Amino acid sequence: MRDLFNQPTDRRGTNSSKWDLLESRFDVPLEDGLAMWTADSDYPTAPCVLEAVKKALDHGVFGYIASLDAYNTAIQWWMQNRHDWTIQKDWILSGQGLGNAIAFCLDVWSNPGDRVVTFNPVYHEFEFKIRKAGRIPVQIPLVRTGDSYSLDLDTAQDMLDGTEKMIIFCSPQNPSGRIWTPEELRAVADFAERNNLILVSDEVHHDFVYPGHRFVPMDVAAPEARERTVTLTAASKTFNIAGMKTGNFIIPDADLRAQLQQRLRALDYTPNRLGIEMVTAAYSPAGADWVDAQIAHLDQNRKTFDTAVNAIPGVRSLPLASTYLAWVDFSGTGMEHEEISQRVRKSARIAPSPGPDFGPGGETFLRFNLATQHDRVVEAGKRLQAAFGDLQ
Amino acid sequence: MRDLFNQPTDRRGTNSSKWDLLESRFDVPLEDGLAMWTADSDYPTAPCVLEAVKKALDHGVFGYIASLDAYNTAIQWWMQNRHDWTIQKDWILSGQGLGNAIAFCLDVWSNPGDRVVTFNPVYHEFEFKIRKAGRIPVQIPLVRTGDSYSLDLDTAQDMLDGTEKMIIFCSPQNPSGRIWTPEELRAVADFAERNNLILVSDEVHHDFVYPGHRFVPMDVAAPEARERTVTLTAASKTFNIAGMKTGNFIIPDADLRAQLQQRLRALDYTPNRLGIEMVTAAYSPAGADWVDAQIAHLDQNRKTFDTAVNAIPGVRSLPLASTYLAWVDFSGTGMEHEEISQRVRKSARIAPSPGPDFGPGGETFLRFNLATQHDRVVEAGKRLQAAFGDLQ
Ligand SMILES: Cc1ncc(COP(=O)(O)O)c(C=O)c1O
Ligand SMILES: Cc1ncc(COP(=O)(O)O)c(C=O)c1O
Repeated sequence: MRDLFNQPTDRRGTNSSKWDLLESRFDVPLEDGLAMWTADSDYPTAPCVLEAVKKALDHGVFGYIASLDAYNTAIQWWMQNRHDWTIQKDWILSGQGLGNAIAFCLDVWSNPGDRVVTFNPVYHEFEFKIRKAGRIPVQIPLVRTGDSYSLDLDTAQDMLDGTEKMIIFCSPQNPSGRIWTPEELRAVADFAERNNLILVSDEVHHDFVYPGHRFVPMDVAAPEARERTVTLTAASKTFNIAGMKTGNFIIPDADLRAQLQQRLRALDYTPNRLGIEMVTAAYSPAGADWVDAQIAHLDQNRKTFDTAVNAIPGVRSLPLASTYLAWVDFSGTGMEHEEISQRVRKSARIAPSPGPDFGPGGETFLRFNLATQHDRVVEAGKRLQAAFGDLQ
Repeated sequence: MRDLFNQPTDRRGTNSSKWDLLESRFDVPLEDGLAMWTADSDYPTAPCVLEAVKKALDHGVFGYIASLDAYNTAIQWWMQNRHDWTIQKDWILSGQGLGNAIAFCLDVWSNPGDRVVTFNPVYHEFEFKIRKAGRIPVQIPLVRTGDSYSLDLDTAQDMLDGTEKMIIFCSPQNPSGRIWTPEELRAVADFAERNNLILVSDEVHHDFVYPGHRFVPMDVAAPEARERTVTLTAASKTFNIAGMKTGNFIIPDADLRAQLQQRLRALDYTPNRLGIEMVTAAYSPAGADWVDAQIAHLDQNRKTFDTAVNAIPGVRSLPLASTYLAWVDFSGTGMEHEEISQRVRKSARIAPSPGPDFGPGGETFLRFNLATQHDRVVEAGKRLQAAFGDLQ
C-alpha cells in the first residue's frame, strides 16, 4: 500500500491551488518548482473513496439526497474507532468545509466588534476569518520551549479585556504539530469557562498521529465544558478531499446545537452528494488501513526532511507529533525573513507557507507541506541544503 | 441519444429523496410506487458530465481548487449560446445551490420582519425560505386565464404596505411552466422599481423550453432594472446534478455584487471541486446537444401524459411551455384535495407534489414530475385513469 503514496502524480494544470498558483503567487517556476504550501496532499485519495466515486459514476444520477444517516453513522464509527470518542449521531451538523464552519461559529456566537482568542503561531486563516467577519483577533503567544510550544494561560488572562466571546483552538496545532495533553486541554477548557467563552476546537488534523503520540479530543479531555464546546472535524485533510467541501460541527450541547442549526437551516445548508458519499466510504475499516499506511509514509517523509534540513547550520525543523506540516525555524541563520524566503523560493525553487502569516512567533519560520511523494521530499532537502550551502 | 433517457434506472436505495422517502412521506409503496414529486430526473446526467467525473476519478486527487475561471467561462458561453445573454465573468458569484442562493439574497437584502413578494402558485420553497429567515411572505395571486396564468400588478400594488424589500420571481414559472413575455418581465421590473424592491429572478428552469416557445432572461428584457436585479441560474435541473449543490448569482450591478460578495467571503463560501468540474463540462456544445435530446424526450413525455390525464373528465393538465413539471388541475372533478390526493397515492400509487404547498391558487392541483423514462409516464397515465375510472 505504501506505493500508493509514491506513485508520480503531476497536479500541474489540474486546477490545484497548491500547484497552479506557484508562479503567480510565489514566483517559483512551474517547470521544476516544488509546491509545499497549502495543506492538501499530492497523492490520490484512498481506493475505498475512489470506489465510491466509481459507484456514483456508474449510477450516473446526482439528484437530491434523502438522508445523512449513513454519513453520520460513518462519522460516529470513525470517532469511536480511531479516537475512542463516543458521540451521538444527532450531535453532528454539516458545514461546507471547516473554513466555512469556523466562519459560521463566528457568525452565530459572536457579533461584529467582539474579540476572539487564538493561540499563535496558528493556522493563518483563523485571523483572516476573524477579520473578514468584522471581529477582532486576540493573538496569545504560545511559549517556545526547546523544540516545542506550551500554553501560558496567565499571560492569556492578562491579555483579555472582557469583551472576548470565543476561542478558536487548534488541536493538534497547525503549525508545529503539537498534540495537547489532556491536562492542557482541561486548562484551556477552564480558561474558556472562567471567561465565559465559546470554545471552538478545530481538530481537523486529528488523524495524523505519529508513533509514540496519542491524540485526545477536547470533548474527551474536558467533557465538563460541553455547554460551551464546538468540535470541528473533517475527512478533508486525512483523505485529501478538501476540494469536496465537507466538514462537521460536533456539538453535544442541545442549546448550542439548536442555535447553529437554526442558522444553517435559514441559509439552506446541505452538503453535496459526492462529498458525503466519499466521506462515508472513507470512514471505514478500509479507510483506516489506508490512513495507517499514509502515516507510515509521512513518518518516513518527516524523518528524511528533518535530517536534511537540520543538517543546515542554524536551521531547525521542529519534530512533529501530528500533521504533515513541517515547521522550520531559520532563526539560527541570523537572516531576515526576506532573505530566507528569497533563497527558498528563488534558489531552492520551493514554495512553502510563510511563517509570519501564522502570527506572533512565526516570524523566523517557514512551513513545509510533506504530504507528497518521498522523492519530492528528498529533492526538497537537497535543494534547501544547496540554497544555504554557504553556511556549511 | 434519446435512448439515454429511456434506459431503466432504479433509484431506490440510492439515497434519493424522491424515491427513498416514498413510503415515509407519501405512504406510497416503494415496491411499485411512482415517485413524481421532487424536481430531479430519473435518468443519468449527460455523458460529457460523466466524462468529467471519470477524469477526476482517474486523477484521484481532490484538493483545493485554484480558480473558477474555466467554470465562469463555461457559464458565460452557455448564457450567450443558449440564451442570447451576454454576461461578464465577474458578474458571477457562486452559491451552494439555488435554495441556498435564495436564502443568501434574503439574508443580504432584507431584515427579519420585512415582507417579501412572490407570485403564486409558485415553488413552495420560496415561502418556506422566507419564513425560515424570519421574513413575511406576501403571496400575490396569479390570474388563471384559461390554460395559463397572467400577472395582475394592480392587485399586487394594492397588497403592498410599503415594508416590502424584495420580490422572488420564478421565470420560467414553477409550477405551470409559464414563460413570461419580455413585456411581462418589464412590467415586473417596473413594479420592482416603483416599490424600490430587490428583484431576484430565479431562472433555474430556463433550459427547458418546448418547441414554439422562447425564454428571455430578465436581464435581457429589462436591463434598465440592473441596479436591483439578481438573476439565479444553475445547471442542476438541466443536467440532473442538484445533489452537487452548485448554482450562481449573476449580478451586473457592482454595488449589489459587492454587498453579496462580502457576505459570501465572511462565511467562506467556495463551491466544491467535482460540482464545478461537472458544470464546466456540462456547459459545452456536447452538453447542449444532450439538452436538446432531453427536451425532445420530455416533449414526448408531456404529450403522452397530458393526453392520458386530460381524458379523465374534470382533470386538466396545463400545457407546458417550460419545465418538466406537469401542473394538473383536478377542480373539474368536484372533489376535495384530500380525496384527490388519496386516490392518486393509494389507488394510483403515485407521489406527486401537493398543489396546496404552492400557495394560493394551488388548492385543486397536483404537480407531476415527468423527468423520467417514457414507460413510467405511460404507466402513470394508466394508473391515474384507473384511479378516477368511476368518472368515465
Ligand atoms: C487547522 C485547520 N482548520 C481548517 C482548515 C481548512 O479546512 P477546510 O479545507 O475544510 O476549509 C485547515 C486547512 O489547512 C486547517 O489546517
Ligand atoms: C424555481 C426553483 N428554484 C430553486 C430550486 C432549488 O434549487 P437547488 O436544488 O439548486 O437548491 C428549485 C428546485 O426545484 C426550483 O424549482
